[in-house]
This record gives sequence, C-alpha cells and structure tokens, in this order.
Amino acid sequence: MAVYTDVSDEALEAFLADYAIGGLVAFRGIAEGVENSNFQLRTTQGDFILTLYEKRVNVRELPWFLGLMQHLAVQGVTCPQPVADKTGTTLKTLAGRPAAITTFLPGVWPRKVRTCHCRPLGRALAQLHEAGRSYAPVRHNSLGPAAWQPLLNSCRSGAETVQRGLEAELDAAFAHILPLWPGRDGNPDLPRGQIHADLFPDNVFFLHDSVSGLIDFYFACTDILAYDIAICLNAWCFDVDGSFNVTFARQLLQGYQDVRPLSAPELAALPVLARGAAMRFLLTRLYDWINTPADALVTPKDPLDYLKRLRFHLATENVDGYGV
Amino acid sequence: MAVYTDVSDEALEAFLADYAIGGLVAFRGIAEGVENSNFQLRTTQGDFILTLYEKRVNVRELPWFLGLMQHLAVQGVTCPQPVADKTGTTLKTLAGRPAAITTFLPGVWPRKVRTCHCRPLGRALAQLHEAGRSYAPVRHNSLGPAAWQPLLNSCRSGAETVQRGLEAELDAAFAHILPLWPGRDGNPDLPRGQIHADLFPDNVFFLHDSVSGLIDFYFACTDILAYDIAICLNAWCFDVDGSFNVTFARQLLQGYQDVRPLSAPELAALPVLARGAAMRFLLTRLYDWINTPADALVTPKDPLDYLKRLRFHLATENVDGYGV
Repeated sequence: MAVYTDVSDEALEAFLADYAIGGLVAFRGIAEGVENSNFQLRTTQGDFILTLYEKRVNVRELPWFLGLMQHLAVQGVTCPQPVADKTGTTLKTLAGRPAAITTFLPGVWPRKVRTCHCRPLGRALAQLHEAGRSYAPVRHNSLGPAAWQPLLNSCRSGAETVQRGLEAELDAAFAHILPLWPGRDGNPDLPRGQIHADLFPDNVFFLHDSVSGLIDFYFACTDILAYDIAICLNAWCFDVDGSFNVTFARQLLQGYQDVRPLSAPELAALPVLARGAAMRFLLTRLYDWINTPADALVTPKDPLDYLKRLRFHLATENVDGYGV
Repeated sequence: MAVYTDVSDEALEAFLADYAIGGLVAFRGIAEGVENSNFQLRTTQGDFILTLYEKRVNVRELPWFLGLMQHLAVQGVTCPQPVADKTGTTLKTLAGRPAAITTFLPGVWPRKVRTCHCRPLGRALAQLHEAGRSYAPVRHNSLGPAAWQPLLNSCRSGAETVQRGLEAELDAAFAHILPLWPGRDGNPDLPRGQIHADLFPDNVFFLHDSVSGLIDFYFACTDILAYDIAICLNAWCFDVDGSFNVTFARQLLQGYQDVRPLSAPELAALPVLARGAAMRFLLTRLYDWINTPADALVTPKDPLDYLKRLRFHLATENVDGYGV
C-alpha cells in the first residue's frame, strides 16, 4: 500500500485553492508504491496525482527530482509533469509533508512481462537518456558501488540467517565487480547522464503495447547510462522461476539502440554493470528483509531473487549472453 | 490498503472484452477499504470501480448485494451501480475471485466530520431506506443481536488482555440490552427494511457539502431501519477524544426526519439501538484485535473506542440525549 499519511478534505480544499487547476471532484489513495503516499486527484479540470513525500525521501533533493521530471516532460518523455501553483511553486507542504501535484498518466503496468513490452521499454529508456542530456544539475547515485560495502557490512549478521554462505558469496562478488567498474580504479569511464535507476515493470505504464508513462523518479541520479539498461536487464528479463529470458533482453537492447546506439565499450561493460545492478538490488532488499518490522505495512521482497540474477550475470562473460 | 489480489493486465483486457464499456485506459489499486480488493478503472468510455471479492464475503450473498445496489441506483440513490457485461451478467470471475464492475462516484469522504455533513447524511440515509422498501429479497443481519453472544464467547480470554474487567462489563451490557431489543422477547417490533449497516464516514462521499456517493454495501441487510441511524450516531457523532457531539446528532436526526419522520416508538428505542450498535462494533473490533496476525496488511481498529460509546449510550436514558 502507499498511503502512509492521510489528508483531510479541509486541508486538501485549502491546498487546492493555491492552484489554478479547478475544484475538487474526487480523491482516492493509490495502493501501488512503497516509498511515498500517492493519491489520485480529480478536479473539474482533469486528473492529477498528489504525492506526499515520506521520510525515506530527502527533502533537499526534491527540487532536483521535480526539475528532472519537468525537464523530461517538456522534452516529450511521458513522465509525470509537476504542476505549479499560482505562484509558480511545484514543491509545497500538505499534512506536514513535502507535497507535489503532477499530471496523471494513462496506462497499466505489466504484471507479467511479455516480449512485446521490451522493445518499447528499451526505446523509452533511451529517449529518457537523450532528453536528460540537457538537464545539467547532478545528483550523485547514493546507491552506487561506493554504497554497497557499507550496506553489506550493516547486513553481515543477518545475511547468514537468510542463506548460509551468503556473506562469503557477496564478499567474493564484490572483490570481482568493483575493480572492473567503469570509471573506478583507473578504468575508462562510460557515457554518463540522468538515469531512472529503478525502472521496474510497476514504474512503466503501457497502452496498446506502447509506453504511455514512466513514473517514480525518486531514485533517479546522474550515473553511467548503460547501468540503467543493466538495471532493466535485471528487472524485466528474468522469468518468475529465475531463468533468464534472452528474447526479452535482445528486444530491450534493440529498442534502446533504435534510439541511442551503444558504443563498443558500453556493450562490453554490460555484464559487469548487470552484476552491479543485481548486487545493488540484492543489498537493499537484504537490508529491508532484515530490518523490516513484522507489523510493517509493506512486505519486503525476497533478496534471494537477486542472488540468482547475480550468479547468472557472473557467469555471463560478454554481451552475447544478452542476445546481442 | 485494499489490494489483496492483483490482476494481470492480460486477464484484465480479456475480462473487459466481455463488456461494452470501451477499451482499457488506466487501472490503479485503491488504498481505501479493508474487506475487498478495489481498483479504479478507466476505459475510453469513462471511470468505473472493479471489485474483487475476498474471502470474508460470502459469494452466495453477492447477488443480493449487487441487486440491492442496482435497485437503489435506479431509485436515485447515489450508490455504485453494477455494470452488466454483454450478456447481462454483473457478477463475474477474475483472477480466481468473484468480481464486479460498478460505476465510479465522485466526491471525497470526510476525514473529520463537521456539522455541515450530518444533515445531508441523515437525508441520504432516509432516502436509502425509502428506496429500499421496494427491494423484496431479505438478507438476515449476520451481525445482529443473536451473533453478539457467540462473538463475545470467542473473545473471552482475549478481552481481559485488552482491558481488565471488559468481559464482565460486556456481559452486564448484554444482560441489559438484549431483553429490551425491539422484536425480541415479545417486545413490539419497529419498521424494518434494507439498511446499510456500516455507514461510516469513509463510506460516504461529499461534494460541495452534498452527499455524492454511498459506498460499500457488503454489510447491508434487512433489519430495523432505526438501527441504521443508531450505527450512524456511533460512527459520526463522537469526537476523536470520545466525547459525544450532540449538535452532530441533532443534525443527523433532523436530516433523516426531513425525508422519513420517525415514529414515537422508533425515537424511544434509539438509546437501546445505539447501545446495540456500539456493542456490535466493539465486538467485531475486539475479535479482529485479538485475531489479527502481527504481520497483517490491515491494522485493526481499537475496540475500546466503542467501549466509551457503549458507556455513553447506556447512560443516555431517552432520545433527548441525542438532541431531539
């Protein structure tokens, strides 16, 4: 669920009076999402999303996220566009939380990924990268390689309760991945820019097999562009049983290259980037798995799904393994 | 939250093909509600609600509920109207659950009850009762007085852990309420009909201080009409600190009597009906409080809120106490 903070109808009416988007017609909490509280808001002028930012989002970073979404939307990316109030402000306060209204996007996220989703996804990702080039502000990736060792250290005792030998396996994977990481330890760097960094199926809406919306930009950051593809390889191209679907991967990469052809060094780096992406999601899931109280509203996701992916990518020697 | 069962986009598309309500445009889970899974569904023809009925609803009773909503909607009550598929069927199956599409209602439920809500609420309740007169099928109230003793018996050991002396206090309240209950033990009966039986603020949408929607009819049943008023006295007329708000009650009763004047026996019975209503919600909350696992998605509501209400109604000797 995703309503941690409720909004009184009186407070909402007062809040809407700051905007020139018409009068309140309907207001319902949205069940999807785990980080923030989201509401579907209808006014006499149309549909919007109201987001209250909860404690895992750093308030000081919100202008960067809202600025990126504004920039991308203006460039034609189908992402939520922040709506300014009558004074031109997009980041406001409601019910004691930072709050913003964004445009509503049609579409349905794919509960089960099919081949037909992957090429449009790849194209949309490349379009996002291209559109982000002209957004100059930088946001460091707070869940990049430098964060993984401290994350693992905070999970060491719990890791063994999740699976015997997990701690040693992750240590070995680290020792392998980090020295190969582009831009670290004197390795040549790869093209960088604004990446989504969390483009899982529930963040991509489709309508008639076209991408109609990319949402939830609150992990977006400035990082290696091809790392965003590596995240999608992990998030979209494994079947429920953990087996890799090379058809999905081929379509994803073809779609991406329809818009933004990858250089030879980017293609060559995909296996290590995919290993890193698997590591990043494994570690945050492991952390949540160990640290989520039993009575929490959100059920943590199984970190071991990502151990399977990590092993697959460690065994994948070059980009041929991804169908290219 | 209220999405226990998710629906794949493929299954949804196939399901919608049975209807003549246009193509899929958007689909989001609704956070509100605790019994069933609800989704806001947009098609090219408008907005709808899709409900998947979860295990606490008896499938065999769904035709009664859907029939009542259909009947009330046709009579002009602003309640969800079941939408029939191309074959005229309203109750169908989706994702292995009984499922129905109903019309979307605008409005916002009042997070904080104000005086301006109570007279429109009373009128809407009386209109519901009047419109229900011509709906002949009967549904026994499975949470009526006959159910209270078994419910309490199943909570006896837990009751004392919630509050010392609670078991004895409830036994004494039973011994007082049941012999006075209209229609029992040779007591004269009161007018009966279709009642909502769960008309809490989150089931009533308002728009510009008018009632724009009554929702969630899955506790509706055939019972004493004035008992529905007694439920609203409990659900709407107590402040957060547990103190009774006689202004709200007066407005509620005035609104009701604007449409359907109450007889002297109905007015005289309000205190005992209100005690019974407090008992009913106290007992189901107590049961849920004791029996909800710590990791459940829904946080149980504090039963002691209703102990305060029960004590108030026990101390209220006649309808004057409700502002009449």
